Amino acid sequence: MAGTFSGTTETDGDWVNLLPEVILSHPQMGENIGASARAMKNCGLNNLHLVAPRDGWPNPAAEAMASGGADLLETAGIYDTTRDAAAPFTLIAATTARRRGMAKPILSPRDAAQRLIEHKSQGGRTALLFGAERSGLDNDEVALADIIITVPLNPAFSSLNLAQAVLLMGWECRMAAMMDAPADPPPPWPAAASQDKQFFFDALEKTLAEGGFFGTPDMQPGVMRNIKAMLNRADLTEQDISTLHGMVKAIKRSVKPSK
Amino acid sequence: MAGTFSGTTETDGDWVNLLPEVILSHPQMGENIGASARAMKNCGLNNLHLVAPRDGWPNPAAEAMASGGADLLETAGIYDTTRDAAAPFTLIAATTARRRGMAKPILSPRDAAQRLIEHKSQGGRTALLFGAERSGLDNDEVALADIIITVPLNPAFSSLNLAQAVLLMGWECRMAAMMDAPADPPPPWPAAASQDKQFFFDALEKTLAEGGFFGTPDMQPGVMRNIKAMLNRADLTEQDISTLHGMVKAIKRSVKPSK
Repeated sequence: MAGTFSGTTETDGDWVNLLPEVILSHPQMGENIGASARAMKNCGLNNLHLVAPRDGWPNPAAEAMASGGADLLETAGIYDTTRDAAAPFTLIAATTARRRGMAKPILSPRDAAQRLIEHKSQGGRTALLFGAERSGLDNDEVALADIIITVPLNPAFSSLNLAQAVLLMGWECRMAAMMDAPADPPPPWPAAASQDKQFFFDALEKTLAEGGFFGTPDMQPGVMRNIKAMLNRADLTEQDISTLHGMVKAIKRSVKPSK
Repeated sequence: MAGTFSGTTETDGDWVNLLPEVILSHPQMGENIGASARAMKNCGLNNLHLVAPRDGWPNPAAEAMASGGADLLETAGIYDTTRDAAAPFTLIAATTARRRGMAKPILSPRDAAQRLIEHKSQGGRTALLFGAERSGLDNDEVALADIIITVPLNPAFSSLNLAQAVLLMGWECRMAAMMDAPADPPPPWPAAASQDKQFFFDALEKTLAEGGFFGTPDMQPGVMRNIKAMLNRADLTEQDISTLHGMVKAIKRSVKPSK
């Protein structure tokens, strides 16, 4: 399953320190814990806290599924209650499907991610809180949260599994933290100089005129402007210009002289 | 696994019509096809296209995993080649891990999502193209794409499975469509369909080969990919394609027969 999709940067920046920790409340299947650890690792989240995992701890099924995220399982904190796990955090965001009639801010994943990153950058300690696979978070657990996240998925088919929910929130936090960091410089791009483009365009225009491309002479300037506009949209490089010169020569050579 | 995370809106708006279609090239495990269909459905993407699924079609393992996304499998298009599947689309975004040395725009998921939504809002037809689980997309498949998406995941652990990649891109497209951000200056229009571009490229390749453009035969595929990449950067319109055909003919006519 590897290779479909992967990163291009060499190493993450200090902004990874702005990512939140994760609390899984009463997780049931070990596989889901392992898959959640993977998803965290994908996004650069490194601190996992488990509240009363149903099948005890450690859990071989979790380890088998975690793959490259296994180190998160080894260092995971284990707690009897969500209240214990939540204790040190200064901002907790709970993901929940149901509205609870509690007067808490309800945010989208994107807005919640921004809030979490900002809060930590100001010196706070932040956590994402996820409920059990089937039952979600109970009211007392939601009451521990400072903000509530709801995810606007397809109302006709909105359920995500636990690891997908962790991936989605981890991704949004990662994006929010990266954007907080200074942007990378643009990639080197040996753009063609104007004079080199004009030299090619002049040669092309001469050739096209010889081939009767322009219909009447008064159409020639407008048609050439359109051709230049098309090619200039390609952000031509120096290499492109020499490729284009070579293409015109080769097209000419393709004509059989026997005529 | 239900209930962890779910939507709050009653029904999606017309903006779901701006979401892209999905092409899975040479998918291997039926389970991954089914899980990808689920992820699409979560995000409101409804049109799935499958290129040469390894285990044939229909696939009971895919159906078992798809759950509420099973209707997408029933209506999925099946193709022998990626080129066939890509034919009707005017903007194709390929997800790939490796840089190919092709000068195509490389975008983040967020920027790519915005581009896809804008393009479709202007009347184009858009697709996300995903490669096989292990091997990803080959160079000729990447050459069909107009833009390349790379995902800045943790460089130390960046692999996502296919359904997670589909979920992540589906989510970003969903957010972009919901926000319905004001468009950048629109690209020229109407955009050329993939099949019309390929027809021109094939004719050009034949002419260039006759003119001895490619040096040795083994250089031909790579050189053609670079030419396609250059021209695809121009966001070619239908009119551009017919201009290009006319230019090649005129260049040929420019050769004096007296020789």
